[in-house]
Amino acid sequence: MAKSKFEYVRLFETEDRCLPNSWIVVRVDGKGFHKFSTEHDYEKPNDMRALSLMNKAATSVMEEFKDICLAYGQSDEYSFVFRKETQVYSRRSAKLSTNVCSLFTSAFVYYWSEHFPSSKPLYPPVFDGRTVLYPSNQNIRDYLSWRQADCHINNLYNTTFWALILKAGLTPGEAEQKLKGTLSGDKNEILFSQFSINYNKEPEMLRKGTILVRRKVPVVLPDGSGTREKSQIVQLHTDVIGDEFWNENNHLLTIS
Amino acid sequence: MAKSKFEYVRLFETEDRCLPNSWIVVRVDGKGFHKFSTEHDYEKPNDMRALSLMNKAATSVMEEFKDICLAYGQSDEYSFVFRKETQVYSRRSAKLSTNVCSLFTSAFVYYWSEHFPSSKPLYPPVFDGRTVLYPSNQNIRDYLSWRQADCHINNLYNTTFWALILKAGLTPGEAEQKLKGTLSGDKNEILFSQFSINYNKEPEMLRKGTILVRRKVPVVLPDGSGTREKSQIVQLHTDVIGDEFWNENNHLLTIS
Amino acid sequence: MAKSKFEYVRLFETEDRCLPNSWIVVRVDGKGFHKFSTEHDYEKPNDMRALSLMNKAATSVMEEFKDICLAYGQSDEYSFVFRKETQVYSRRSAKLSTNVCSLFTSAFVYYWSEHFPSSKPLYPPVFDGRTVLYPSNQNIRDYLSWRQADCHINNLYNTTFWALILKAGLTPGEAEQKLKGTLSGDKNEILFSQFSINYNKEPEMLRKGTILVRRKVPVVLPDGSGTREKSQIVQLHTDVIGDEFWNENNHLLTIS
Amino acid sequence: MAKSKFEYVRLFETEDRCLPNSWIVVRVDGKGFHKFSTEHDYEKPNDMRALSLMNKAATSVMEEFKDICLAYGQSDEYSFVFRKETQVYSRRSAKLSTNVCSLFTSAFVYYWSEHFPSSKPLYPPVFDGRTVLYPSNQNIRDYLSWRQADCHINNLYNTTFWALILKAGLTPGEAEQKLKGTLSGDKNEILFSQFSINYNKEPEMLRKGTILVRRKVPVVLPDGSGTREKSQIVQLHTDVIGDEFWNENNHLLTIS
Repeated sequence: MAKSKFEYVRLFETEDRCLPNSWIVVRVDGKGFHKFSTEHDYEKPNDMRALSLMNKAATSVMEEFKDICLAYGQSDEYSFVFRKETQVYSRRSAKLSTNVCSLFTSAFVYYWSEHFPSSKPLYPPVFDGRTVLYPSNQNIRDYLSWRQADCHINNLYNTTFWALILKAGLTPGEAEQKLKGTLSGDKNEILFSQFSINYNKEPEMLRKGTILVRRKVPVVLPDGSGTREKSQIVQLHTDVIGDEFWNENNHLLTIS
Repeated sequence: MAKSKFEYVRLFETEDRCLPNSWIVVRVDGKGFHKFSTEHDYEKPNDMRALSLMNKAATSVMEEFKDICLAYGQSDEYSFVFRKETQVYSRRSAKLSTNVCSLFTSAFVYYWSEHFPSSKPLYPPVFDGRTVLYPSNQNIRDYLSWRQADCHINNLYNTTFWALILKAGLTPGEAEQKLKGTLSGDKNEILFSQFSINYNKEPEMLRKGTILVRRKVPVVLPDGSGTREKSQIVQLHTDVIGDEFWNENNHLLTIS
Repeated sequence: MAKSKFEYVRLFETEDRCLPNSWIVVRVDGKGFHKFSTEHDYEKPNDMRALSLMNKAATSVMEEFKDICLAYGQSDEYSFVFRKETQVYSRRSAKLSTNVCSLFTSAFVYYWSEHFPSSKPLYPPVFDGRTVLYPSNQNIRDYLSWRQADCHINNLYNTTFWALILKAGLTPGEAEQKLKGTLSGDKNEILFSQFSINYNKEPEMLRKGTILVRRKVPVVLPDGSGTREKSQIVQLHTDVIGDEFWNENNHLLTIS
Repeated sequence: MAKSKFEYVRLFETEDRCLPNSWIVVRVDGKGFHKFSTEHDYEKPNDMRALSLMNKAATSVMEEFKDICLAYGQSDEYSFVFRKETQVYSRRSAKLSTNVCSLFTSAFVYYWSEHFPSSKPLYPPVFDGRTVLYPSNQNIRDYLSWRQADCHINNLYNTTFWALILKAGLTPGEAEQKLKGTLSGDKNEILFSQFSINYNKEPEMLRKGTILVRRKVPVVLPDGSGTREKSQIVQLHTDVIGDEFWNENNHLLTIS
């Protein structure tokens, strides 16, 4: 069997190393999750089981890839930020996006039953993935702000949309019509005056999304003689636009 | 909330459209499956449950992506061949590799329990993915031959290696030592003389791997008045190096 | 002087190897040549000196790069077709485009005075370059047909446009207005009825552009004892859409 | 003439936009200039005519591309640094490298006779080009330091090498042998003790290369009533490793 005769086909594979010294973001995104969420009776406007499953899957990814310093998730998407200097998979773009995407998907199916009473989903759910580079600290900061702004805008809309349907009895078409052209202030006003909902008091996870970072936490030694520091992945639901994660030079502070 | 202020970060995403008029192969590959197979008590040298699960996951991918005209799998890898003219995802390389890889992984976990008695794997399994282009019909044919030659070489080695361990009681180190520098003929001879195994009579799925193609099959009409043709995905374990899949111009014959 | 301290910056260079087994076209294109041709009093609609200088520059490129099997030029552009298997510069895209583009430009300036009476151009002329891949023989054939169709369309338009100006005394604006919406037949008719020009009798170089190929020609041996074959670059002005350059499998016949 | 039938081939061209917010360097490099310099009797170790011609060609490039904020040249190479935010040619990599490379080459041939007594070169000289991205200010600073360190190392070697040949009568082979394994200090010592050359007193242009930057210079108004500022390209031969070109945040100071 002349193996070498065919081996030339390896040369058709292309190099796709990411530019050095740039933030690498891998974002995974649910494929057809509008339909998927309906078919799986996701609660509206937000399903806490689905969000906690997303957070669990993302935590699995961060536990595997130590060079991910921060992850940000909302709705059916999650962004993983690799530190600028990472050499994992020689910074090969497709290796990074497919490994992260595969592990995220795998964990999502694997941990499904811990979050949903039904034993399994109706069919295998799918997430796509992409690798994007951000050269400066300001760029990665703006990227995260972009996703968080998207979270805010969508959640405010969805909260109002579903209140109109579930509490005021409008049809989806009527609710859509009513919200057409409204600004943030208008939606806040509808929520407050019609449903006594103060949007700013809604759970932070829904309004801000979820940030995963590593934090050093004290762990009691087995013999009780003291504590040692251990790195742990923690969930935050604060503002990435604020200064909490950034030092004075806009550097990401991932371990505090 | 000034959405537009951050939206510039979208411009950092790159175009990655595949060259038109070229075969697109997406290959998925188990990550750390040597360890995974040991931890999940895969039978050696081949575990039919694992192979049938791989085939099931690959079939799910082909059912979703109608433009995949042929898939080839062996061991912990599967290659999906999109027809040259496909416009799925505008031929964007990362979209193709991550979607195929995510669905394959998802189906692998989803259908696990149908193939393995244990209810679930010990941890979420991962596959990586890559997109490779082959411009000519000869190139795609040689690509498939390359993977099938790899199947043959590895399976002959593994069959002999595990016979030496399981039947002759050698340690893995001793078996490895014994096979060092042997040619195909030597391994065939060891199998035959020492274990009465005629390698060429081993199951074709193990020696050749699995080819998935679409075939038109007749389906009886509900009213029994006749039959109609329906496209179905079928498994073959033949030689891709042969002429079965290729017309006189080396074109892939995917529907016969 | 710590050379090594800075040398890491080499890692920021990217690989850009062209897909194997594909035709590589490098096309150079005059930058701002509408203005350049006016400033250098190019004859309208065509300047034979300029075209012969283009052909000379292109011939210099073909003499240097033996793997260019065919070149096609018209107006202020030239396309160079490298054979599918070329390994020149390891098929690196930027190496190919910049070397071809630099040599073409260099030769254009270098040989200027042989074609134009004035000693030198008013300022250094510039050509841009690009590398494009074509996987199949039909694709490269269609590429050349595309450029030749472009030549035909532009030359028919320009011939009519300038006849209206130079022979009928129209202003450029009036000529443009008159040709608006006309088809090929209309322009042929204007040329024939108004200017007694049979467009099909115009010089083939203007209607078809210039094809450069290598041909084996007999050369008399120094001692007069016979002849030997020598490869030479020849200019043709025929139809690339015809079958002259292509064998029955659409393969480029570059040496006859 | 069915233009549209062939026009599909345009789709085979690929997008190659540079990552936003990154320094873009286009470096041009003489092709075969060791041979070229010998054939054109360049003075050794340095030919001031050749260097001034290089500087002239580079100045032409900077005059054309206003977004080049700094250029650095030495020997037969020149690096052009586009400001991070440039949108010239939509940041398309091949457009940038081929245009810069073509104009540099064109100007080199065009202005040849102003720097060399002979009317023209023996054949058209060629430069290749490449586009490289540097995300941070430190990276671009290190890139320039890398090229300047290369200048220093080569010039110290060449100065000693040619002194041994031209002044001490060694053959090139003997000179090479003598310098094998020597450090900078050794070469400085040879120059000083054997040839009374204090290397640090050699012309800065040779030791440091040439930096081109834009500087605002006062120009007397035509009516003599005062002056106005005008941007001009000036040559410097200082240390890019020093702080002259950089502000406290490592930003390039191109206009002072």
